[in-house]
Amino acid sequence: MNLQDYMSRIGKQARDAAQVLARTPTINKNNALEAIAQKIEQQHNSLVAANAKDLEAGKAKGLEDALLDRLALNDSRIANMIEGLRQMITLPDPIGEITDLNYRPSGIQVGKMRVPLGVVGIIYESRPNVTADAAALCLKSGNATILRGGSEAIHSNQAIAQCIQAGLTEADLPSAAVQVIETTDRAAVGELVRLSEYVDVIIPRGGKGLIERVSNEARIPVIKHLDGICHVYIDDKANLEKAIAVAYNAKTQRYGTCNTMETLLVAEGIAAQVLPTLAEKYQAAGVELRGCTATQALLPNMKAATDEDWKTEYLAPILSIKIVSDYEAAIAHINQYSSQHTDSIITEDWSRARQFLTQVDSSSVMVNTSTRFADGFEYGLGAEIGISTDKFHARGPVGLEGLTSQKYIVLGDGHTRQ
Amino acid sequence: MNLQDYMSRIGKQARDAAQVLARTPTINKNNALEAIAQKIEQQHNSLVAANAKDLEAGKAKGLEDALLDRLALNDSRIANMIEGLRQMITLPDPIGEITDLNYRPSGIQVGKMRVPLGVVGIIYESRPNVTADAAALCLKSGNATILRGGSEAIHSNQAIAQCIQAGLTEADLPSAAVQVIETTDRAAVGELVRLSEYVDVIIPRGGKGLIERVSNEARIPVIKHLDGICHVYIDDKANLEKAIAVAYNAKTQRYGTCNTMETLLVAEGIAAQVLPTLAEKYQAAGVELRGCTATQALLPNMKAATDEDWKTEYLAPILSIKIVSDYEAAIAHINQYSSQHTDSIITEDWSRARQFLTQVDSSSVMVNTSTRFADGFEYGLGAEIGISTDKFHARGPVGLEGLTSQKYIVLGDGHTRQ
Repeated sequence: MNLQDYMSRIGKQARDAAQVLARTPTINKNNALEAIAQKIEQQHNSLVAANAKDLEAGKAKGLEDALLDRLALNDSRIANMIEGLRQMITLPDPIGEITDLNYRPSGIQVGKMRVPLGVVGIIYESRPNVTADAAALCLKSGNATILRGGSEAIHSNQAIAQCIQAGLTEADLPSAAVQVIETTDRAAVGELVRLSEYVDVIIPRGGKGLIERVSNEARIPVIKHLDGICHVYIDDKANLEKAIAVAYNAKTQRYGTCNTMETLLVAEGIAAQVLPTLAEKYQAAGVELRGCTATQALLPNMKAATDEDWKTEYLAPILSIKIVSDYEAAIAHINQYSSQHTDSIITEDWSRARQFLTQVDSSSVMVNTSTRFADGFEYGLGAEIGISTDKFHARGPVGLEGLTSQKYIVLGDGHTRQ
Repeated sequence: MNLQDYMSRIGKQARDAAQVLARTPTINKNNALEAIAQKIEQQHNSLVAANAKDLEAGKAKGLEDALLDRLALNDSRIANMIEGLRQMITLPDPIGEITDLNYRPSGIQVGKMRVPLGVVGIIYESRPNVTADAAALCLKSGNATILRGGSEAIHSNQAIAQCIQAGLTEADLPSAAVQVIETTDRAAVGELVRLSEYVDVIIPRGGKGLIERVSNEARIPVIKHLDGICHVYIDDKANLEKAIAVAYNAKTQRYGTCNTMETLLVAEGIAAQVLPTLAEKYQAAGVELRGCTATQALLPNMKAATDEDWKTEYLAPILSIKIVSDYEAAIAHINQYSSQHTDSIITEDWSRARQFLTQVDSSSVMVNTSTRFADGFEYGLGAEIGISTDKFHARGPVGLEGLTSQKYIVLGDGHTRQ
């Protein structure tokens, strides 16, 4: 069978399964999640063995350590997958939720009912745990899933896929509810993102290269963020202690995450008070600092930040620092350079906080809070399939609700329109 | 200036205006709406004169009567435009609305704030009143608008555009908040739907040909419905009186609207009781009936309905009728042939009504209600920019809220992540 036919068959099977899933009661979806969790528990050793094959091949191919680390399926990661599946059971089922059901002057009752999107295509790179995590989110939200993992994780993903299939079968759900693409042919991604007849949304998870490729080629809506160029702005009305705590945490709590601060903006009125202390803390943590001319004048021996720095997501212990005249200049800098992921102001000034919340055009806008909080778990979504910096459909961390839509329901007693 | 440069300039101006509009207070937007209404009132005669040019050119070109009727800007239509603008003032401003603001265990407060989409491109055909109606909806929801009307309405649209420009200027809003494309070059549509850097969503309003063209060419999200193949299913547990009232109203109250019933499904157990009476009423109203074999056996002298009929939006006094075995067969027929616009069940049976609401995969699903109710005004949205049969972003009638997105806001007091 050629690739196109193979992908079409996968798509059609997913569409058929989606129709069943859309009307599957909560208890049956939960039973399937529990059955999958048990299969993964039982197959612990074969998962580790399959993963060992991937790791060995990866080493032979000379993959770098960071990639090999992401690829590894150790005991704690397997335990996390199982815990994720069981946590999904405890989350409320969004499907069928009826809201805003109100009487209209005509006498009809109009409301909204939450429904699944249909078929979700997930394209990801090396982390095999995404296979179970993404399948669980889609299953709970009544969507069929087509998963396409990285070729370097093919054995691990197929082993997890077998557990998922066995769990679905045990719970009497269609096995095509979750399909893991079996070919490592890169062209399969191109086919998947054009299967508009069968796939309703594509979610790429991985590096900027993957996401750009998917965005450019897709003929289906994509939920994505390209990068996370997040800012903290320390206003001259900031509380110094909070400013230092938040700015330090936002950069150093983890370096490789998309919600890590990459640029620190400081009002010139407070720069001399806050920057020396902060710089000392950053340097003690091994963070390389790059500054604008004013910052360099204040903190000697610092590399100059170029325009390129304001546009760069380092994902590393590097921080660019810019001194700005005031909060309006900070907002202007953010709206120009931010990737619309997450930006935070540190201030005790009521009006400036309100203005920042309104005028910064990012998917998460914060006051006196570390940007590191921007994720689905911290926001209480229970789980996260990704983060969207777009405005269409979903914005910010995307959980179960982002995988659904709302149709209108209208109830009457023989009502006719005049 | 060539077309591409012209459209890019329009796009860039709209993007700049959108940034101003996003932070414009409600009162200023309302002042602009009132100023535009007054300009249209003052320019009544010049609007009629501009429209006369379009009508004359249309007649000379041999446009059919229905099209000329849609093109006409008479006193009552001008009054309706003015009324629409003033009603928009009374609607609550969706922008800035904060919902679901809750404390998380970490101590941060997380909520959602409603924001505009940005720049909305509207592509429409002959009705010039769309120019004012669409501009008002976008303005109130804080979006900049680029309007591209039909070439046959160019003089009317430009005259309305001048009133809008004058109103915006009087209210101190950027005149690029609403731009009406001045060229009648058809290629402008192709350019507009590819301006992904500057335009956030495209809304086509018009015939199926226009909507298909826009959907195929667009590189920007589109809010659309292709057609309205709406069903009423009369269950064998229906109340006869309600069934007849609703089925008659859904077909005959207006023929040319997208929420008009095109196919009537009847349970075989009730067909002999309900169809003869209904057929008589339809025929008295001049509705041509086309039936399946069973319907033909019951009602002699009826044309046969072919498979093509189940897929056709007549927009005319024609109705196809099919007798089905039961409600499950009705749901299956609807999910196969419906355009996911609006479908209604007539039944007194509690469980069947619940099942129909859940299992019919359309943007409006109704019980004991005429499909003719499916529109933004009847649903209480205050106004309607269009209807979406898609699931991504918006589904069903789209009002102010469908032109917005929600960003996350996070409030803290120096909170850092552990």
